[in-house]
Amino acid sequence: MPSLIIDTDPGVDDAFAIALACAMPEVTLLGVTAVFGNVPLAMTTRNARRLLAFLGREDVPVGIGAAHPLVHPQVHEAYDVHGSDGLSGRADTLPEPRARASDVDAVTLMARLLEAADEPVTIVPIGPLTNVALLLAAHPRLAEKIDRLVIMGGGLAHGNTTPAAEFNLWSDPEAAQRVLAVEQVPVTLVPLDLTLRCTVDKAWLTALAESGPIGAALAGFSADTYAYYSEFLGRDGVPIHDAVAVAEAAVPGLLRTAAMPVEVDCSYGPGRGGLIADQ
Amino acid sequence: MPSLIIDTDPGVDDAFAIALACAMPEVTLLGVTAVFGNVPLAMTTRNARRLLAFLGREDVPVGIGAAHPLVHPQVHEAYDVHGSDGLSGRADTLPEPRARASDVDAVTLMARLLEAADEPVTIVPIGPLTNVALLLAAHPRLAEKIDRLVIMGGGLAHGNTTPAAEFNLWSDPEAAQRVLAVEQVPVTLVPLDLTLRCTVDKAWLTALAESGPIGAALAGFSADTYAYYSEFLGRDGVPIHDAVAVAEAAVPGLLRTAAMPVEVDCSYGPGRGGLIADQ
Amino acid sequence: MPSLIIDTDPGVDDAFAIALACAMPEVTLLGVTAVFGNVPLAMTTRNARRLLAFLGREDVPVGIGAAHPLVHPQVHEAYDVHGSDGLSGRADTLPEPRARASDVDAVTLMARLLEAADEPVTIVPIGPLTNVALLLAAHPRLAEKIDRLVIMGGGLAHGNTTPAAEFNLWSDPEAAQRVLAVEQVPVTLVPLDLTLRCTVDKAWLTALAESGPIGAALAGFSADTYAYYSEFLGRDGVPIHDAVAVAEAAVPGLLRTAAMPVEVDCSYGPGRGGLIADQ
Amino acid sequence: MPSLIIDTDPGVDDAFAIALACAMPEVTLLGVTAVFGNVPLAMTTRNARRLLAFLGREDVPVGIGAAHPLVHPQVHEAYDVHGSDGLSGRADTLPEPRARASDVDAVTLMARLLEAADEPVTIVPIGPLTNVALLLAAHPRLAEKIDRLVIMGGGLAHGNTTPAAEFNLWSDPEAAQRVLAVEQVPVTLVPLDLTLRCTVDKAWLTALAESGPIGAALAGFSADTYAYYSEFLGRDGVPIHDAVAVAEAAVPGLLRTAAMPVEVDCSYGPGRGGLIADQ
Ligand SMILES: [Ca+2]
Ligand SMILES: [Ca+2]
Ligand SMILES: [Ca+2]
Ligand SMILES: [Ca+2]
Repeated sequence: MPSLIIDTDPGVDDAFAIALACAMPEVTLLGVTAVFGNVPLAMTTRNARRLLAFLGREDVPVGIGAAHPLVHPQVHEAYDVHGSDGLSGRADTLPEPRARASDVDAVTLMARLLEAADEPVTIVPIGPLTNVALLLAAHPRLAEKIDRLVIMGGGLAHGNTTPAAEFNLWSDPEAAQRVLAVEQVPVTLVPLDLTLRCTVDKAWLTALAESGPIGAALAGFSADTYAYYSEFLGRDGVPIHDAVAVAEAAVPGLLRTAAMPVEVDCSYGPGRGGLIADQ
Repeated sequence: MPSLIIDTDPGVDDAFAIALACAMPEVTLLGVTAVFGNVPLAMTTRNARRLLAFLGREDVPVGIGAAHPLVHPQVHEAYDVHGSDGLSGRADTLPEPRARASDVDAVTLMARLLEAADEPVTIVPIGPLTNVALLLAAHPRLAEKIDRLVIMGGGLAHGNTTPAAEFNLWSDPEAAQRVLAVEQVPVTLVPLDLTLRCTVDKAWLTALAESGPIGAALAGFSADTYAYYSEFLGRDGVPIHDAVAVAEAAVPGLLRTAAMPVEVDCSYGPGRGGLIADQ
Repeated sequence: MPSLIIDTDPGVDDAFAIALACAMPEVTLLGVTAVFGNVPLAMTTRNARRLLAFLGREDVPVGIGAAHPLVHPQVHEAYDVHGSDGLSGRADTLPEPRARASDVDAVTLMARLLEAADEPVTIVPIGPLTNVALLLAAHPRLAEKIDRLVIMGGGLAHGNTTPAAEFNLWSDPEAAQRVLAVEQVPVTLVPLDLTLRCTVDKAWLTALAESGPIGAALAGFSADTYAYYSEFLGRDGVPIHDAVAVAEAAVPGLLRTAAMPVEVDCSYGPGRGGLIADQ
Repeated sequence: MPSLIIDTDPGVDDAFAIALACAMPEVTLLGVTAVFGNVPLAMTTRNARRLLAFLGREDVPVGIGAAHPLVHPQVHEAYDVHGSDGLSGRADTLPEPRARASDVDAVTLMARLLEAADEPVTIVPIGPLTNVALLLAAHPRLAEKIDRLVIMGGGLAHGNTTPAAEFNLWSDPEAAQRVLAVEQVPVTLVPLDLTLRCTVDKAWLTALAESGPIGAALAGFSADTYAYYSEFLGRDGVPIHDAVAVAEAAVPGLLRTAAMPVEVDCSYGPGRGGLIADQ
């Protein structure tokens, strides 16, 4: 039974991913760490806490991670895809956690959870890779407590934020290079090429909305994202990128994989943030 | 009837491309200019001259172009694909031209041919883009005498020389950026993604060899290239990249195209030489 | 007696440099080529022609050079230093040439002058190095007709356009890298470190103005430049960068030099255009 | 009375700097953290522990820091300057600590010391800036417990490892950019331009050697460094870079400073690791 830590920047598809992890009996969710990304850190932290409260999982600790990339400032967020608050403007419909929030930072929380774990843990980074890079760089001996990283990020054929770069890698190329190309921890990368093919349609979202209060909330969050992607894709469909990574983390081997060396472009040029894979 | 100037670094597929241009009644071949690339400039120049002599086209003038890229030195040639002399070790089987070779340089020859042309000319660059960049930069007023550039180069999905870069663009990224992204001259780009699908097999090469002396010579040149590609592709096949560009130049519209802005990565990093296309 | 070609983007100090070359009996001025730089190419070309007309040297041919850098677009001009027309707003006070201007391009003119020269020629580039890079790259065999390049450009300690880069190198780093680090032609570089110490003061300019019509015109052109530099330097003084290069070209050995390998930073980053010298 | 944490890669001048901090009554030395740099991490950690044992300061805790830079691998160490073990081959002459060493990591140790401190602490980084970048990035709320950073690193006029870059910045440009250009913590930078002027000569080292066992050990460590620098400088002298930073940290205001914005070049090009200061 995989034990997971989800590192996330909710984000609509992050909300689906967290809900999926909470819904799957195969999974023990040890903790959630927030990172800047789709929206600023204060919003992603609040969204993570409220989502867990709404899902009845206030027992899951939330760590406050990086507000900025490892080295160079992030240039833009993804308000156009995820709405003004990361959840299509509906973050306020989620309940406040009852308990006062801990202010533990993400690296400290991940380190504690790893140290305390009896079995190696799967970390599922579904936002910029800053927190994970910091964990591995600041506490190298904890790498042995990590079973693998199942990362949503990168695009083999092309990007979605620039022609060359996918949003998570583009948001912190240096952290991604550290995690993907320098560290020895096993990585399963779930790239854009795959997630763009994992779309759900209007009918699916309607059925989800009618399945109960959680489904209704998730379907509600999808409004802005659905609008963005159905226009982008030119058809009735919206991908749920981050949930694909959680599914693989929960059911190892669900996805078919191929091994290949990768690098992340850390130049200042037009390729910045691109995934360079030796296919 | 398109008038062509072929800018080339023969190269096996360059030999096919030149032979195709000479064989097609649709084409007036105004000139050939040599550039460093698959092998050094002295070899590409000699190969171009001998190929034209062998094809009975000593009337076509040959210009001696750039021995080096526009800015930074080229790091390697492509001896593994094209053999020690660019023609699978068979360059010496071609006849020496009867007339003493002119030593006109490539930029001067292209400029003269363009100035003398009554109708706009199609230039077909099938090597590194150094000569063409120099022509356009040194003689900007001649751009109006160019109908379009039909360029073999770049890869949308990935490269063949590095994970990010195709050989022609990788050999001179700055020249490619100048030609593809800065200049206003119409360009039809024939990328690796297409040419890798335009392969011929053993049976085709055998039939070619039996078609006459020119076919026999071309089939002979293909030995090293066929060995390289049939292993690389994992099947009986070899692409003839450069001939695809000549075919489109000779029969405009032969290929289906899509318009997209492109950039060439000129950083010092792992993405150097990559084609960044906003698809 | 050195024969000079001046490659220039007038520019106030360029005007001084051209006037100096015309005034020195030691010098044969073979030609002047214009390049974009302080102001756009149309202005630098017109300024060069009018300056020669004003100086009584309509016999000196003017070539029209590059309007843009070799690879990437130039980001800004130097209107703050040289005024709206490159000559402190006084370009219109200069006479129109009497003869209709030739439209020969700069590379062609330089090539013709070099081919015709009996003795090796000194080229004095005092603007962005685009024209000279194109000449050397397009016509490599003419390098042997060049005695040396005496180039105003670069800063060892720091720049003047960015913290890292001096204006001429910053305006076309790729051309500068080609000329300074790749080509084998002897170069005497006159960097900012030196020219900033070669200032003239108000009293000198006043004496110049009273020396005759040429002095009066030059002093008049200096208005904007003097205002800029006296504030920048915090004292009564203005450098005449480009004239220092012409002085060394006219009187070889006038300056004390030290040999050192150099590179020009062609990255997309904050060091772009910087001169990297191994002192 | 300043409380210091020294972050170090001993290193001969690091040994002087640590000895100075231990000798000055003005200073409370809270801890020492080791980082890769002049020699690999295992050696710098061992050298730091033995130096403190030799200096009678086993009470000072030592944290084990980064073995590698933040993002890209380090290309070389400085064995030529500091000898095979970082201390001119004499590290083994130092005593083993009596107590078994803690294996606390550097970021954790710094975080604990900062949290426990009543007054803001001065951190003195005298090696690559990896540990400090990780501390600030992983534990942003601790920035307020830092009084300032007194950093030995960078060169305004030129570098010492490449023409553009000084060793500490060159060893981890991304960490340096984070610390120097992104973080808001006050920094006093002690660059190469200054430390190269702070040399001691043979006579001074002889007097040091005769001053007692600590002086004798320090003078002994200087053998390789003295040989390197007296040749490099062309005179009887060796700089003690890192001790200058400790001196300023111990006696704030000892050095005259000027405020200026800086950036660190993180490109892949020849300027990598350079300090770009807007003077
Ligand atoms: Ca996400
Ligand atoms: Ca070719
Ligand atoms: Ca100038
Ligand atoms: Ca040190």
